Amino acid sequence: MSKYSIGIDFGTLSARAVIADVENGKIIGGSEVFDYPHGVITELFGKPLPEGYALQHPRDYTDALELLIPTLVNKNSISPADVVSIAIDFTACTVFPLSSDGTPLCFDKKYEREPHAYAKLWKHAGATKYAKKIEDAARKHSDMLKLTGNMMSGEFMYPKLYETYIEAPHIYKETARFVNAGDYLASLLVGHYVHSMAYATIKEHYDNSESGGYPPRAFFEEIDEGFADVLDKTGRELDKVGDSCGNICKEWAERLGLTENTAIAVPIVDAHGPLGAMGIEDGKAVVALGTSAVMAVLSSKYAYVDGVLSIGHEATAKGLTTYEAGIRAMGDLYAWFINNCLPAEYEKRAEQSGMNIHAYLRSLAEKKAIGESGLLALDWWNGNRSVIPNDKLSGMILGMRLSTKPEDIYRAIIESTVFELRKVYTNYVSQGVEIKSFVAAGGIAAKDPMLMQILADVLNIDVDCLTVKEATALGTSVWGAVAAGCYGSLEEASAKMKPPIDKTYHPIAENVEKYEKLYERYSELYEYFAKNNDVMEFLYDFKFEN
Amino acid sequence: MSKYSIGIDFGTLSARAVIADVENGKIIGGSEVFDYPHGVITELFGKPLPEGYALQHPRDYTDALELLIPTLVNKNSISPADVVSIAIDFTACTVFPLSSDGTPLCFDKKYEREPHAYAKLWKHAGATKYAKKIEDAARKHSDMLKLTGNMMSGEFMYPKLYETYIEAPHIYKETARFVNAGDYLASLLVGHYVHSMAYATIKEHYDNSESGGYPPRAFFEEIDEGFADVLDKTGRELDKVGDSCGNICKEWAERLGLTENTAIAVPIVDAHGPLGAMGIEDGKAVVALGTSAVMAVLSSKYAYVDGVLSIGHEATAKGLTTYEAGIRAMGDLYAWFINNCLPAEYEKRAEQSGMNIHAYLRSLAEKKAIGESGLLALDWWNGNRSVIPNDKLSGMILGMRLSTKPEDIYRAIIESTVFELRKVYTNYVSQGVEIKSFVAAGGIAAKDPMLMQILADVLNIDVDCLTVKEATALGTSVWGAVAAGCYGSLEEASAKMKPPIDKTYHPIAENVEKYEKLYERYSELYEYFAKNNDVMEFLYDFKFEN
Repeated sequence: MSKYSIGIDFGTLSARAVIADVENGKIIGGSEVFDYPHGVITELFGKPLPEGYALQHPRDYTDALELLIPTLVNKNSISPADVVSIAIDFTACTVFPLSSDGTPLCFDKKYEREPHAYAKLWKHAGATKYAKKIEDAARKHSDMLKLTGNMMSGEFMYPKLYETYIEAPHIYKETARFVNAGDYLASLLVGHYVHSMAYATIKEHYDNSESGGYPPRAFFEEIDEGFADVLDKTGRELDKVGDSCGNICKEWAERLGLTENTAIAVPIVDAHGPLGAMGIEDGKAVVALGTSAVMAVLSSKYAYVDGVLSIGHEATAKGLTTYEAGIRAMGDLYAWFINNCLPAEYEKRAEQSGMNIHAYLRSLAEKKAIGESGLLALDWWNGNRSVIPNDKLSGMILGMRLSTKPEDIYRAIIESTVFELRKVYTNYVSQGVEIKSFVAAGGIAAKDPMLMQILADVLNIDVDCLTVKEATALGTSVWGAVAAGCYGSLEEASAKMKPPIDKTYHPIAENVEKYEKLYERYSELYEYFAKNNDVMEFLYDFKFEN
Repeated sequence: MSKYSIGIDFGTLSARAVIADVENGKIIGGSEVFDYPHGVITELFGKPLPEGYALQHPRDYTDALELLIPTLVNKNSISPADVVSIAIDFTACTVFPLSSDGTPLCFDKKYEREPHAYAKLWKHAGATKYAKKIEDAARKHSDMLKLTGNMMSGEFMYPKLYETYIEAPHIYKETARFVNAGDYLASLLVGHYVHSMAYATIKEHYDNSESGGYPPRAFFEEIDEGFADVLDKTGRELDKVGDSCGNICKEWAERLGLTENTAIAVPIVDAHGPLGAMGIEDGKAVVALGTSAVMAVLSSKYAYVDGVLSIGHEATAKGLTTYEAGIRAMGDLYAWFINNCLPAEYEKRAEQSGMNIHAYLRSLAEKKAIGESGLLALDWWNGNRSVIPNDKLSGMILGMRLSTKPEDIYRAIIESTVFELRKVYTNYVSQGVEIKSFVAAGGIAAKDPMLMQILADVLNIDVDCLTVKEATALGTSVWGAVAAGCYGSLEEASAKMKPPIDKTYHPIAENVEKYEKLYERYSELYEYFAKNNDVMEFLYDFKFEN
């Protein structure tokens, strides 16, 4: 008799769910998707919110649960008793305030026009203006920034809460607890507060080592005396990832049509979901190639690695540290090129040949020899995230001649993103974070074999490619299988439940050698513009001064 | 009773002629144009010529004379007796071989399938492969390269003749004389050989100083023993610019419907033609803004100025040295951008607004504040001609963000060309070539007021703008007026005959200050990539190695 784990991936615009056979990870009957009715909120009651605001309505999250789970169970004629677990992954840090009875403040009529009563989505940038102040306080009182690439981002939790403290003190005061959205859903399902180690380590600067812990009180006091109680509002007790946080409560079991034997996994960060589908093990690296690219590495070694933006010990699995570093624009950069640099003639020819524009450009670019474009680029169109984090760095292309064609530039831009991924890769390895196997996932991995080959050639390693459509939700269901006790560890569960690799790209010796030469010159430019010449910062600042 | 001088400008694709009143430079009845029937020859008898070949048929030149002159005279009801002179400017070095009776070899059936029997146009690049060898010989035996930016280009005369010597020795042997195309036409008209100082100084490394002269015999011997007779084949007697080389001969007077009293001016280089229309005087700088940009300066000082590609003492007028330096791609670069980087959406919007695409982009770009694009570029899409000549340098753009728009890049590219013009300008001034007044001419000067203002702001000088359509042919007619004895000097003639300035652009203090800051950063990048990091050369070479 098969048992099933439901994995739900709460992304930026929708939640996607699958029901997986815990024995072999087989997805039963495909995925279900729930698009958030409120999407990303940038205006409230017809009034536009300030630049950079990105809010959400928590009702969308609970609606997703109530729609997706019964649909999956009923549609696939699963017996509720066979649903042994539910596991949730969620964007982070997506955070909102609850009243003393645990209700989101924005559900209260009194606060429905208050932006700070809503969920601040991971990319909400309203707190960016406070990041510097908080970073200075951090430097003064702790070494917490070593967990996050030696910088404080406005997208982490404390800046977001401080923003509320400053801009909506009445909301801050009224808040009994600030919750991560993933924790909120798990809490609802089990009927008591949950606070996942995943969110604490990744976005709250919780150092999960013996000598670690939360940032010291002095740090919060340095920011503002009155802000020092924020730790009391966020829940100090932490739940370990890989555990169950309890079985589903009666109310929600009924609401979702499940039995009270369903275990609820401690929730995880959305970016970690795919790891379940890749195999959770020491030395596993997964690069998710999408609008941006994140290279996550699981390691038995917990170290403060420079140039890595997020270091979470046991953020994903017990005994393993999850490192995350990456590049800020990948698909976004290719899309920029298509939207801003592509001649009409090319659009027309792509249409005539019945290809989408990327496929058409690729068909031209892949005919070129390595180096034939004569171009090198730095892909910092959205700044540099790793390994020399600096938002003010910007893009560069070099080598243009009058004979340079759009496909040359397209290929050079792709190569620049891959070169930067090598920087990220090398940064791990050179600091002792061993990488034993390497998996690429995400839309680009599935769609761009040229890029995948370049990746294998530039990194000079085998690149496994996993293109299963619902890798995140499927991977997340693995945490459920463990929470339900079907396996003794995440390692064991993921080994059984992960789908087979679609394809492995092997480096081609001749290409490796050529790219080595280009990479050497790329590295010079990388160092020069990141460290030795501040012209990019100058231009960034000059733009706003004038 | 008015007297007239005919000026004919022999360009790359056509000859353009005007008939001008010698008293005031008024053009009578507009210009006449003759498009060369053979254009630029890149294949012969259906067989494509090697890459870089650019030949012409000298018959086109004589046909131009025979069509243009009678047309101008008849159409405007000028009495032939009132045509006091004909002056020719011609591209240089455009050169071809003559038989012992003075006939172009390519007119002979025997040689009509031989590329080396035709005129090698100024931009014919077939000899580029020999430039290095000839440059080395030059360095060994003379300091002749100081006249041409310390380099030998395949476009100068000796490489072109050496190419014939090596690749078509029978043609070389059969050649009684190699002539510049301009010299050929003047020779035909007067009935004896003419060899203008203009061509000798500008493209033949003739040092027109007391201690100067032609390159030494050892130089030619170093190239090849058998090539040492080339000087005997090019005519050592030189005709001074500003002089008459004699009156028109009977045969050609009849053929053109003129009297034998018509003086034929010593021919000049096409790039110098406009100087006649700007005013020939010590300290005059003229920048011709077209597909490329040339900044010519007339100076009473004869010096070997670094970073200047052409230094011709008395190449234009007696007692003055003509310096020429410039940038290799201007309009060509803007056209590259339009052809390779412009989204369909922009083309459509330009069409809807009834503007040509440059005007449309300008309408967007000129709304931007200085520095608002956040971009800086190096405009070396066709290499660097001055002040650090290197064909292998290439283009660069830096500062791109995901918010960067095509009009940002368009403006940055324009600014980069203007910044490079400042390099050229500063190079003159810093080496003691004084610039007292500055005139911009050419298609871009007429059409792009945004660029003209940027030019005034970046150079921080008044920029006079002369947009008269036939500035070159009109200017050339000034040499005719002097040859005919209407004036005692070119200075005097041009002062009387030059048309009024259309507009003067004055620097705007606020802009000057902002551009000063950007130029400082531009200069760092300029120095870095031209001198300290050879990545552009590396990429150029790597392209061909692979």
